[in-house]
Amino acid sequence: MSEIEALAAALRAGETTAEALTRRTLARIAEHNGELGAFAFVDHEGALGAARLADDELLDGIDRGPLHGIPVAVKDLIDVKGLPATRGSAHFAGHQAADDAECVRRLRSAGAVIIGSTVTHEFGYGPTGDRSWHGPARNPRDMGRMAGGSSGGSAAAVAAGLVPVALGTDTGGSARIPAALCGIAGYKPAYGRLPTEGVFPLAPSLDHVGVLAATARDCRLVVQALAPQHTAPHGELGAVARIGWLKPAPQAPVTRAVADRTRRSLSPHDVARVPGDALGGMWDTFGDIQNSEAYATHADRVRDQPELFDAEVLDRLRNASRTPGWRYVRALHAREAARRNISELFERFDLLASPTVGITAPLLGRREVTVNGSPCSVRGALLALTSPWNVLGLPALSVPAGSVDGLPVGVQLICPPEREDLLFTVAATLA
Amino acid sequence: MSEIEALAAALRAGETTAEALTRRTLARIAEHNGELGAFAFVDHEGALGAARLADDELLDGIDRGPLHGIPVAVKDLIDVKGLPATRGSAHFAGHQAADDAECVRRLRSAGAVIIGSTVTHEFGYGPTGDRSWHGPARNPRDMGRMAGGSSGGSAAAVAAGLVPVALGTDTGGSARIPAALCGIAGYKPAYGRLPTEGVFPLAPSLDHVGVLAATARDCRLVVQALAPQHTAPHGELGAVARIGWLKPAPQAPVTRAVADRTRRSLSPHDVARVPGDALGGMWDTFGDIQNSEAYATHADRVRDQPELFDAEVLDRLRNASRTPGWRYVRALHAREAARRNISELFERFDLLASPTVGITAPLLGRREVTVNGSPCSVRGALLALTSPWNVLGLPALSVPAGSVDGLPVGVQLICPPEREDLLFTVAATLA
Repeated sequence: MSEIEALAAALRAGETTAEALTRRTLARIAEHNGELGAFAFVDHEGALGAARLADDELLDGIDRGPLHGIPVAVKDLIDVKGLPATRGSAHFAGHQAADDAECVRRLRSAGAVIIGSTVTHEFGYGPTGDRSWHGPARNPRDMGRMAGGSSGGSAAAVAAGLVPVALGTDTGGSARIPAALCGIAGYKPAYGRLPTEGVFPLAPSLDHVGVLAATARDCRLVVQALAPQHTAPHGELGAVARIGWLKPAPQAPVTRAVADRTRRSLSPHDVARVPGDALGGMWDTFGDIQNSEAYATHADRVRDQPELFDAEVLDRLRNASRTPGWRYVRALHAREAARRNISELFERFDLLASPTVGITAPLLGRREVTVNGSPCSVRGALLALTSPWNVLGLPALSVPAGSVDGLPVGVQLICPPEREDLLFTVAATLA
Repeated sequence: MSEIEALAAALRAGETTAEALTRRTLARIAEHNGELGAFAFVDHEGALGAARLADDELLDGIDRGPLHGIPVAVKDLIDVKGLPATRGSAHFAGHQAADDAECVRRLRSAGAVIIGSTVTHEFGYGPTGDRSWHGPARNPRDMGRMAGGSSGGSAAAVAAGLVPVALGTDTGGSARIPAALCGIAGYKPAYGRLPTEGVFPLAPSLDHVGVLAATARDCRLVVQALAPQHTAPHGELGAVARIGWLKPAPQAPVTRAVADRTRRSLSPHDVARVPGDALGGMWDTFGDIQNSEAYATHADRVRDQPELFDAEVLDRLRNASRTPGWRYVRALHAREAARRNISELFERFDLLASPTVGITAPLLGRREVTVNGSPCSVRGALLALTSPWNVLGLPALSVPAGSVDGLPVGVQLICPPEREDLLFTVAATLA
């Protein structure tokens, strides 16, 4: 039984109430958030009101399903009506969301209790999670280290046990990366599966809504509650799945220890190295798409009020403005070619897998790390293995896979859009 | 009866043969092409063989329809199996097409006799039609003037009476512009209606195959022969169509004489000025899309063998390479917004109209003209009114509308994709 299922059972057995869960959550946040930097805003009154309503409904026999009465946190890029919506940026200091994002609306219909908004890297534009108007999100496993990003606050909140589940976004790995660095599960469903309406855009053709929770099982439960999808039972899968292990691209820095630990987590299954360089060129493809779309999102702000951006974010945006249009056009072609290549791989493998991130959580503020003796950028190391699945829009799940040097690592599983069930069946069996 | 219909009737009445038509065509080409520069390559043997086959079939009772036995020319961007396919460029000197383009395949199935390939501005990248590896295409109405482009050879061949019909391409007006300047009809059907497979790309999201012929009626006949489409009869149209006259955008140079003459050609109908600036921003949108896609098409050639390009074409490509990706992304958004605006206009108007080109054919080699007292680039003046319809992919027809200062002008009619019939019904009634 997962954490959410346990809470749901306790609520229905009368062992606790939504109000009690919410008060406990609020108390924990009060105690830990100052140091952790997970929450940008906590909605005490709104949360308690929603919790009482959830309790009343359960008493009246109205049961909205597994999220009924469960405390949930929502990343500060996702609009929650009436709450501050800063998007981690001074550009939106004092701004309030006029409406709920569609995924928040669905959370409410499912009976969830929205606790508040979690810290995002400014505008979701950075995998380190430490450049936000609200300050850095810290890693609960080592407060001197980054939580990762851009959904750093969501990962920190779940990993620290403040909430059982949080919504994030994922444009290049922003849900999976902090999940891996913080030792929890993070899931980015297929492109478009969870609605992005009311979610502040970064690079629309790469933007996904994602879910962060202690376990893959809880991630799935939330996705099914927000966007029920019937998937055909995968009759052909026995106890052992055929998993293709992706060779990290040459530019993807992966330490031997992380590679070994994550691959070993798949040992119950039939794991074979995917031949060739299945993801060759994908880093450039991702960069050209993200640069062009992200600058299109922010060009007017860069022109009118550059001083309101974090300096590092501004610098990245200015670099992004220099990607030429013809490279974007070619990147869209490369995306189509890669889609064809990868769908051929799924004729031979049930799932694909790799480490989620090739390194463990870097120290806060760090921008360069040494991997296998070579210096490389922290940003590149964090994004290299997750971003291809944003380009391709495939479901990608990061599952905790033990630790290396005392810090958590995650293994990433990827499936075709229509085989989400299989992803979670396999995730439940990992070593 | 149109020219093609008259020839088709004469063939079936035994008054002529396909071979006789072809021999007459070849003789005319031999006489005029040296000066005119319309044909890049003439396929004497292939044409005569196809003509004899067409005659044999008619004798055997095999009738392939209105194009059976009719001589047709094909722009040098469109592959004709076994013929030189230079695309107007030294890059493809000596290159032969390995296969027929799909539209050529359909021409052959329709019994057409392919005479040869017509001169294109290098790679179709220029509306002046005078920068080709084969030299400039000249305007039959005044040999000192440009035919326009990029399908300059196709327009010159039809306007000089060498062939009754020619295929062209149209990425920003490349079929309609030379048709207008040479005093014939040019039609760009809806995006994708005529297949572009086997047509050398310029900017794929703007690229169309077009048809050039003496009259709109013949253009339609060819399109229907190549891509039959049932369109519902437009019962609601009386004798008078509601035509929205588009105010040329501020940057579109249109002389008063051209505006008056073309608008007057619509006098049988109810013509009203379209309020506001329906095409505002479209010139930039077109430029950003064409630049990005055209450079993506040619980047490797620019890198590896820049010296093989015409200097002006190379200069334009290098400029095109500097359009940033974020502008391309925004142009795609602007295209969607413009689609919505224009489809609202079609609730109030049956058709939209404007001059095809705001000036008459410039002198060969000219790159700047004075319009209404202001200097402007020939390229801008030629493309300004045709290119929006490539961005939007709508059917656009240029019909001869008399002359100004002894040179032909064309009026352009635009309709929703599913109302092609109406376009031709109205074209047949113009003054």
